[in-house]
Amino acid sequence: MEVLAISGSLRRDSHNGELLRAAAQLLPPGAELVVWAGLREIPPYDADADGAPPPAVLDLRAAIGRADGLLVATPEYNHSIPGQLKNALDWLSRPLATSPLKGKPAAVIGASTGMFGAVWAQAELRKVLQAIGARVLDRELPVPNADEAFGPDGGGLEPELREELRSILDGLIAAGRRVPA
Amino acid sequence: MEVLAISGSLRRDSHNGELLRAAAQLLPPGAELVVWAGLREIPPYDADADGAPPPAVLDLRAAIGRADGLLVATPEYNHSIPGQLKNALDWLSRPLATSPLKGKPAAVIGASTGMFGAVWAQAELRKVLQAIGARVLDRELPVPNADEAFGPDGGGLEPELREELRSILDGLIAAGRRVPA
Repeated sequence: MEVLAISGSLRRDSHNGELLRAAAQLLPPGAELVVWAGLREIPPYDADADGAPPPAVLDLRAAIGRADGLLVATPEYNHSIPGQLKNALDWLSRPLATSPLKGKPAAVIGASTGMFGAVWAQAELRKVLQAIGARVLDRELPVPNADEAFGPDGGGLEPELREELRSILDGLIAAGRRVPA
Repeated sequence: MEVLAISGSLRRDSHNGELLRAAAQLLPPGAELVVWAGLREIPPYDADADGAPPPAVLDLRAAIGRADGLLVATPEYNHSIPGQLKNALDWLSRPLATSPLKGKPAAVIGASTGMFGAVWAQAELRKVLQAIGARVLDRELPVPNADEAFGPDGGGLEPELREELRSILDGLIAAGRRVPA
């Protein structure tokens, strides 16, 4: 089983990258987390574009197509999700009939430096993924106060959050097993 | 009085571009609509970026700074606003204290080919603009079924929508006059 993971932040030392590294260690045996790192290369979505999508979009489509489930870790920017993450999803949604997100199990998690930002961003991201046809888990993992959430060595996600994350990953893997090949 | 207008669509013949052209004709005497067309050139927002923002971002900051009000016409993509439009707003929000949107009167309108998409997108856009500190008019102009809304010659916005748009523009101009220089 393969879970494709995307961080919505382009920061080098992003908290959402840390969250994905924590997730990689919590997967059940036999499951693997593959982090997709091409977000910066996705050009602005243009509804006029026809023919083959840009290379970074093709790469993302293929990566999602190969995976059994999608895990997105999003920061919160201005009460919503980062524009560049939404831009990638806009590309993935066209044409809707052949979107690699259609029917794909997906889970949303995220860290933010404030108290509530992560909740708003995850609600927005679930809405958008559902609009495109993904099977989005009705779960969330808002990690607040992300500057301190991972501990001094970056690996110290507190036990309650770690177990919640493990449970979300188990749910995503289980959903992936139920999708017909 | 100057209103800076941005279309959230990169399509060449976009309905939101048509909507802005209609708006230009409905401004009161002495007011001018300036369409900003650099959206495609805005690079992905990166929270690590320090120093001078990219040229397209500087250009947008200056254009908003000069204007008395901001008018954004947004399409709806996947129940929300286009990623590239949000990406531009993410740049404008940092640093928050010197954002050109802070205290800036702003109005949101939009056309979409469906019935409800325009409503969702405008609600999301108002939320984001408010988060950055703009004075967002509590109005909206969802133009549904945009394929037919502008008439065969592109200038046929129906009278009720045209008067609503005129009223929103009057409100935006009035709000611009109230901002201390």
